[in-house]
Amino acid sequence: MRDPILLTPGPLTTSLATRTAMLHDRGSWDSDFNAMTADLCRRLEALVDGGDDIVCVPLQGSGSFAVEAAIGTLLPRDGKLLVLANGAYGQRMAQLAEVMGRAVVTLDFGETAPVDPQRLAEVLARDPSISHVGVIYCETSTGILNPLDAIADVVDRAGRRLIIDAMSALGALPLSAANLAFDAVIASGNKCLEGVPGMGFVLARRDALAAGEGNSHSLSLDLHAQWRYLQRTGQWRFTPPTHVVAALLAALDQFDAEGGRPARLARYRANCAALLDGLHALGLQSFLPADIQAPIIVTVKAPARPDWHFDTFYQRVKAHGVVLYPGKLTKIETFRIGCIGAIGRTEIDMAIDAIGRALAETGLAV
Amino acid sequence: MRDPILLTPGPLTTSLATRTAMLHDRGSWDSDFNAMTADLCRRLEALVDGGDDIVCVPLQGSGSFAVEAAIGTLLPRDGKLLVLANGAYGQRMAQLAEVMGRAVVTLDFGETAPVDPQRLAEVLARDPSISHVGVIYCETSTGILNPLDAIADVVDRAGRRLIIDAMSALGALPLSAANLAFDAVIASGNKCLEGVPGMGFVLARRDALAAGEGNSHSLSLDLHAQWRYLQRTGQWRFTPPTHVVAALLAALDQFDAEGGRPARLARYRANCAALLDGLHALGLQSFLPADIQAPIIVTVKAPARPDWHFDTFYQRVKAHGVVLYPGKLTKIETFRIGCIGAIGRTEIDMAIDAIGRALAETGLAV
Repeated sequence: MRDPILLTPGPLTTSLATRTAMLHDRGSWDSDFNAMTADLCRRLEALVDGGDDIVCVPLQGSGSFAVEAAIGTLLPRDGKLLVLANGAYGQRMAQLAEVMGRAVVTLDFGETAPVDPQRLAEVLARDPSISHVGVIYCETSTGILNPLDAIADVVDRAGRRLIIDAMSALGALPLSAANLAFDAVIASGNKCLEGVPGMGFVLARRDALAAGEGNSHSLSLDLHAQWRYLQRTGQWRFTPPTHVVAALLAALDQFDAEGGRPARLARYRANCAALLDGLHALGLQSFLPADIQAPIIVTVKAPARPDWHFDTFYQRVKAHGVVLYPGKLTKIETFRIGCIGAIGRTEIDMAIDAIGRALAETGLAV
Repeated sequence: MRDPILLTPGPLTTSLATRTAMLHDRGSWDSDFNAMTADLCRRLEALVDGGDDIVCVPLQGSGSFAVEAAIGTLLPRDGKLLVLANGAYGQRMAQLAEVMGRAVVTLDFGETAPVDPQRLAEVLARDPSISHVGVIYCETSTGILNPLDAIADVVDRAGRRLIIDAMSALGALPLSAANLAFDAVIASGNKCLEGVPGMGFVLARRDALAAGEGNSHSLSLDLHAQWRYLQRTGQWRFTPPTHVVAALLAALDQFDAEGGRPARLARYRANCAALLDGLHALGLQSFLPADIQAPIIVTVKAPARPDWHFDTFYQRVKAHGVVLYPGKLTKIETFRIGCIGAIGRTEIDMAIDAIGRALAETGLAV
């Protein structure tokens, strides 16, 4: 029996080569594992053309742990964070800053519109106490692509610092320190890099990170302490998820072999296009206009039928070998389908077939 | 080529069955994975004879993340924590409470003596503002076994709450809610349960956890929120390390098949005894007296020679297929050898052989 295809970013479908990298135990103090950590960090720094200015700090836990660590360490205790929100992950960034007791304001664009750089500029002009701006590059709760270049320009011209949650973007969507001013980019191994869940990482500007000493509200999530310990010893500060690290390195080998970021983006774009075509052929509508649809995850409007039940539909699709995601919109019934992972045209075709069959079986075919 | 035997708790040597459980990707929203999480929690609760009073809350990250989450959630903002310290992990518990801004005092027993319940009783009598007591069951930095029963009695009689870091004890050393009063037991999957690193968990008394709402200094490490979300949805609040969870469940199957905690303790005791015998035969001295030596990790005095270099010795032992741990004592030169993991007499004999050869090769044989 095959494992179902996970169109749920993420965790997502990984390759067998990535998973078999977890068949070995490794000592966390050992020089071989230290070399793996160093290699991993170098390669992640290179993803954003980091040069000497950008350092990678890996962190145990989910991607949100890394977001919290970045905000807690880079935002001074007397700083003020403006979060640009258009979905659940923007809301979460604001919430974690609030829980740690920092000053935070949210500029909310609802659930269906991208961030408007003009409104951002106005807010920054009005409130000079805002020191940092946080933004979600690709808002996974809908699939909205935010205009990162324009946002970074506005933040830079206003003399503020930018923190980018690039969780479901890094490795596919363009993001370069060469043409974008930021203090930190936060991502996780189990999105576009196609590793397994269990660690996130922060690509931080060296001087911003150095200035973050003593800011953290949390020992475990102190990114500065994590970095200094790594510098001094070559090791993670607390027990690292050694198997997850090995899987991410194997996934990066495959990333390189595929042709790096441009090739990965091209495959995801092709996945997304095939998915949208197939959905439309089944009479289903995607939620976002094409110009703000990132090729990462697609939000689909549920059939406008009183007998629509996502759970029934989900189980039917799963019985045909494909796992989908529920919607995350609060006002309209939707579901979501990922375009990312170790999948290509074959898997997208299987997904369309599974969705078509599930609709027919539940009497919802249009 | 075989992987080296890791005598480094932990990560430690796991079984192939545990590692092959990671060969499958699983959706974190899916009912199959939710059932795995529920099964995992039930089985971990049963480890301490939890009944209805104890609930398991799993948490992403290393064991220290779980310690921080437990302290941050269970200790009220206006509470005061007394940490019983005799090594690095006690110091870490005090440090994380301090970083999160809570009142904390440390009763320090040095690095070589177990916690003295009498002194604990005196401190509690003198300072009624202490609301909670934190203790490390087995202090992994040396291998000291602390007298948990007596400590719990003193804390209970003084009307204070006990938080137990049982990281490298749970699953082997006795620990039952039936005869021990505690608010929380914290552990990780990659110690005596022989899973892989990437998650910890807290076994908390239900009413203490319920009372912890709003205490946490951190969104990611909010154990109450993690618990409520799990109760409501059956899911982890943020992306779980799905492969690590699967490995831990497989490891628990093997734990049960072996005969549960008594059988595991018996194997570790046999490992520890064989290790101590072998070391003594090589002329090496263990550091702790037998009555406070937990059968988890053994601290060994380095040969009293000016030409002793741990790194050289370590690499030699590793060349013979065995990975050791450095010492963690500040005043005396030591190294450490774990007795835990998916290892038995064969692996201990191989370790003794490797150590003997390394001593001979470096001219340190005695």
